[in-house]
Amino acid sequence: MRVHNFSAGPAALPGEVLEQAAREMLDWRGSGVSVMEMSHRSAEFGSIAQKAEADLRSLLSVPSEYRILFMQGGALAENAIVPLNLLRGRVQADYVNTGSWSTKSIREAARYCDVREVASGADSGFTRIPPIEQWQMRPEAAYLHICANETIDGLEYSWVPEPPRDVPLVADMSSNILSRRIDVARFGLIYAGAQKNIGPAGLTIVIVHDDLLGAAHALCPSAFNYQLVAQNQSMYNTPPTYAIYIAGLVFEWISRQREGALSGVAALEARNLRKAHLLYGALDATPFYRTRVVAADRSRMNVPFFLPDAALDARFLEGARERQLVGLKGHKTVGGMRASIYNAMPLAGVEALTAYLAEFARLHA
Amino acid sequence: MRVHNFSAGPAALPGEVLEQAAREMLDWRGSGVSVMEMSHRSAEFGSIAQKAEADLRSLLSVPSEYRILFMQGGALAENAIVPLNLLRGRVQADYVNTGSWSTKSIREAARYCDVREVASGADSGFTRIPPIEQWQMRPEAAYLHICANETIDGLEYSWVPEPPRDVPLVADMSSNILSRRIDVARFGLIYAGAQKNIGPAGLTIVIVHDDLLGAAHALCPSAFNYQLVAQNQSMYNTPPTYAIYIAGLVFEWISRQREGALSGVAALEARNLRKAHLLYGALDATPFYRTRVVAADRSRMNVPFFLPDAALDARFLEGARERQLVGLKGHKTVGGMRASIYNAMPLAGVEALTAYLAEFARLHA
Repeated sequence: MRVHNFSAGPAALPGEVLEQAAREMLDWRGSGVSVMEMSHRSAEFGSIAQKAEADLRSLLSVPSEYRILFMQGGALAENAIVPLNLLRGRVQADYVNTGSWSTKSIREAARYCDVREVASGADSGFTRIPPIEQWQMRPEAAYLHICANETIDGLEYSWVPEPPRDVPLVADMSSNILSRRIDVARFGLIYAGAQKNIGPAGLTIVIVHDDLLGAAHALCPSAFNYQLVAQNQSMYNTPPTYAIYIAGLVFEWISRQREGALSGVAALEARNLRKAHLLYGALDATPFYRTRVVAADRSRMNVPFFLPDAALDARFLEGARERQLVGLKGHKTVGGMRASIYNAMPLAGVEALTAYLAEFARLHA
Repeated sequence: MRVHNFSAGPAALPGEVLEQAAREMLDWRGSGVSVMEMSHRSAEFGSIAQKAEADLRSLLSVPSEYRILFMQGGALAENAIVPLNLLRGRVQADYVNTGSWSTKSIREAARYCDVREVASGADSGFTRIPPIEQWQMRPEAAYLHICANETIDGLEYSWVPEPPRDVPLVADMSSNILSRRIDVARFGLIYAGAQKNIGPAGLTIVIVHDDLLGAAHALCPSAFNYQLVAQNQSMYNTPPTYAIYIAGLVFEWISRQREGALSGVAALEARNLRKAHLLYGALDATPFYRTRVVAADRSRMNVPFFLPDAALDARFLEGARERQLVGLKGHKTVGGMRASIYNAMPLAGVEALTAYLAEFARLHA
């Protein structure tokens, strides 16, 4: 019995991926061993890792001058690893603050360089992304950093900022990578923890332009030096092999997705848009529920909402659980509810949730 | 069909652990979700992580004044993370060089402090551990570092060195943790990549004395600051949840092991000793095979050996493969063969290998 899992991450994975993983657990395709037991230097695992990388490159149309790295430590580690690799002798980095994750990135980066918060949504209570006309960007910054989707606050960029010339754009895409098409060429570096749209926690994806490699800080741990990792095809240290295998199965699943004439990431984007419209529509349909983010900046992935009285929260969650809808409790820092509707959440899950939302509002309005 | 997997790491896991993981893949004990899909903040995953930690604490009799941390990055990352955390204002660290892994640790640490190689087995071609009487240890060193088992060279300490007063002992136990009883109280810090005796690659175990926490280098990434990780019960950043779950299943498997009146790690130690005696005995029984390490320092985990002529290597590996014995090729830096006989390798696997060794020697001597 499988439930609809709205967890913000680690999060739902496609059922067919898990079924395949279960089938192959003891014997991967006649090898006589589990993928977990394979040497990372073996021909078998080499083929798994190479296919995962090639499929990801294809899904996101990653240009050839970008490296795809499989790393460890998640976005929180990248908050330090990015400045340790990307300052390249410069001393300043620019950050846009759009919520909880931006704030964490800024705090960590400030330990390594002169960080300017070029714009902040704090005044609005992180209910909107500050318009780019107000960003105080510096042409001498080593990079401009954004969080493409704020998992906790539920804000998402629907556009790509243009930094000053020679300032590469760095984006934390942990919670929206592969959920919509992107033009990788507009970014200098993209990073993402895997545990939302890609696979198990413990794998971090980094997509980085060749030009940004080779100037790491003297104290950057070698295992997190992008150039060393790139030169060794992500096997400078033993990579999280099983997580890469699951990610590869997810990439294959994405490639198989269809919506009308669309396929792959474009198909998921269309489906995600439909799911988000359906859910926000249900929340907007009654004054019972409250959302905070302005319409233009609403996240398609993470939908925080609030009941009229927090005293109803426990009853809402209990009723949801009875309907096999789980993982809906909001983040402790903001309270309320949150529905995360990543790639693996089917339309049927969102439909079940919206039906419950309407029912609960009728009963308690 | 499962083979006998002598891979040095990632390495064989107990079949019953993989069977349980396959059974629970889509629905962990009625939760309706895979462990891979659980929020690390959920009650379900909390119970998994707490039990894994408690079981490991019990298996190794870890005293209460030590923290057990679940981290990421493997031993190669720890080569930097250890000095970033343990210098505590001191500027020197002492290292014993016993082979390939020590050499890597030394090279990385030298980027952070004044490293002294207090003794080296290089002169002997890494065939013996230098006797402690010759170690030039410094009483002002921040710590003394050893590699408890050299995975590539096949050397293992059968004793615990005593550093100068106030110098904590740090040990890389990646390839022999949980294979023999240890007195944790004699160490300041123990670290181990999981992918040999514990579970999937991507999980790193750190066992550290409370007194060593709280003085990390200013540039230590927060995600790798032992004190922050300890204060957050290894959930400062999202931990590698599925790898922790598998490690927990392995800990339960270890607890169930019996050899006569012995149980747990003591039972595995007895079994590992028997396996090692059997294998070294077969290699010593004929002049056909050559081993390099002196008897006293031979590893119980990794057994490198050489055929009289490297031209026979391919034929040896082919015949092994026909007998379902895989992963026997030696590390590229030393050549020859290597049989890794970690906890999960059953006695039957070593018996099958020794039978093949005798047969191959008869045919080709």
